[in-house]
Amino acid sequence: MDPLRTIAEDGAAVLVLDQTRLPADEAHVRLGTLAEAAHAIRSMQVRGAPLIGATAAYGVALALAEGRSLEESLAVLAATRPTAVNLHWALERMRRALSGLPEGGLTTAAWREARAIAAEDAAANAAIGRHGLALLDRPRDGRRPLQVMTHCNAGWLATVAHGTALAPIYAAKDSGLPVHVWVSETRPRNQGLLTAWELARAGITHTLVADNAAGLLMMQGRVDCVIVGADRIAANGDTANKVGTYLKALAAKAHGVPFYVAAPLSTVDFDCPAGDRIPIEERDGAELGAPPGVPVGNPAFDVTPAALIAAFVTERGIISPSHLFRAKS
Amino acid sequence: MDPLRTIAEDGAAVLVLDQTRLPADEAHVRLGTLAEAAHAIRSMQVRGAPLIGATAAYGVALALAEGRSLEESLAVLAATRPTAVNLHWALERMRRALSGLPEGGLTTAAWREARAIAAEDAAANAAIGRHGLALLDRPRDGRRPLQVMTHCNAGWLATVAHGTALAPIYAAKDSGLPVHVWVSETRPRNQGLLTAWELARAGITHTLVADNAAGLLMMQGRVDCVIVGADRIAANGDTANKVGTYLKALAAKAHGVPFYVAAPLSTVDFDCPAGDRIPIEERDGAELGAPPGVPVGNPAFDVTPAALIAAFVTERGIISPSHLFRAKS
Repeated sequence: MDPLRTIAEDGAAVLVLDQTRLPADEAHVRLGTLAEAAHAIRSMQVRGAPLIGATAAYGVALALAEGRSLEESLAVLAATRPTAVNLHWALERMRRALSGLPEGGLTTAAWREARAIAAEDAAANAAIGRHGLALLDRPRDGRRPLQVMTHCNAGWLATVAHGTALAPIYAAKDSGLPVHVWVSETRPRNQGLLTAWELARAGITHTLVADNAAGLLMMQGRVDCVIVGADRIAANGDTANKVGTYLKALAAKAHGVPFYVAAPLSTVDFDCPAGDRIPIEERDGAELGAPPGVPVGNPAFDVTPAALIAAFVTERGIISPSHLFRAKS
Repeated sequence: MDPLRTIAEDGAAVLVLDQTRLPADEAHVRLGTLAEAAHAIRSMQVRGAPLIGATAAYGVALALAEGRSLEESLAVLAATRPTAVNLHWALERMRRALSGLPEGGLTTAAWREARAIAAEDAAANAAIGRHGLALLDRPRDGRRPLQVMTHCNAGWLATVAHGTALAPIYAAKDSGLPVHVWVSETRPRNQGLLTAWELARAGITHTLVADNAAGLLMMQGRVDCVIVGADRIAANGDTANKVGTYLKALAAKAHGVPFYVAAPLSTVDFDCPAGDRIPIEERDGAELGAPPGVPVGNPAFDVTPAALIAAFVTERGIISPSHLFRAKS
């Protein structure tokens, strides 16, 4: 399996990098059934909105190969994670591609469509990297690296390949622009460790900090821009992403630091008019690791209002929040 | 030892509750020397600005009993934590009380002054609770408890007794006002677990959440006010407190949620004109618990600008940031 890809076909199954075992172990898990694909998404063996979409598409192919109905497989996969729109986008695309096909050709067509979704994700993210690079200016004094802050992991681990928020950073590295990345720990699941692992592999300087440090670093003038990914973007530009994103956007606004959201256009839910309509997944409180008996709340996402977002970095170029609706294809 | 006090005299030594072992174990540690007192502060066996001040005062008495000079003991204790002003306030007060006294009476006078500092802290915090209660209105619909968010631990564990930010919450409970507290985890040292432990003991409903959840909860209208403690307050009202406080203040401002700082007036550094002059302690990156080799930054405090603070809750009453300078005694 390509070392910079998260998902690959393996005969009649799919191999995915098991992200719950990173950064300690680089292990793969084989998904051969609908149940295994659904478990991989729910337990976050695969994570990141684009990768969830691709895994769900392959999950439909696995389900059909098991002899399950298209409707059943779509319903099981749709129930795994409520917030990521790519999941529903990918399942809807599978439904459109497969509806009305003769029974005998369904499974082959499902594999073909899942393969196309995965390939298009990799290509879209490569384009996001190219477009995002144009936003990254060399710092004026020219003596220090560009200081980029990110949240969660929206690197190649969160996608089929290349990443979304990290794609412009990788493009910067390739173009010779010195970059240093502030990596937020991203409690409660510490996906910042995945980002640190990716960046170390790519030879990009970075510093892991507690999520709490974001405001201080911006107040101290140590952040030139923020780039994050997205799990669902409403038609008005309001953006759901990993919980804590909104606090970074507020701090960025307070200090005149541009705040960018990098995501493929499949992340935009044009049927959702505004952020207050996006469902927020509440996950198991055990993820915080508190002692038994402590009452815990664990919302996994928050919503950043469009007014705090300087621009969206998409595979079709840089789009301002107020023009997002025009990108509806 | 009184179960709601953090520090008590024990013959020629001082007993403190070892907060690094909470909430799992309720164990005390005996401080008999200057070195043990300095270690207790540095390693955060005692923590919270007011308690650090009282412990340092007792540390001077322990040092003098060992035969060390006043100057040496003040210097060793002053170097333990750079941000908390109560530490320097308490040491300065010990210096004033002891300077010029005959050698033979120094130790006795030091014990007496340390005891006075501890007693005054407990009394000041009780007054903070009474004054703060006046700010806590019963929610208008009357059907749900008042929703208070706090950060870090500024309860009785952070003081000699009663607490600062939690004092009004305990007062609310005593007066029959139903309260629910959103407890921030407070990475990297998870002092939110101390707050949860305190609140559970007091029978006050609470929910532990990741620091990242603060913005979402305020956006959802689930927070009526925020109350935090302080490590150092500049003369203009800018306030240094546990890192992450500033992000909560920004979110509170964005959603019209009043943001209060509860602290004794000994926390105000009238010699410090503004927040940008407050030194920010950088602690060991190992506190984040990242795998070996990950570069880590770990600033322990941040500064909340006075403009984001609705009021200070002090032992002399409610004071607006712009009137703080008048409280100089």
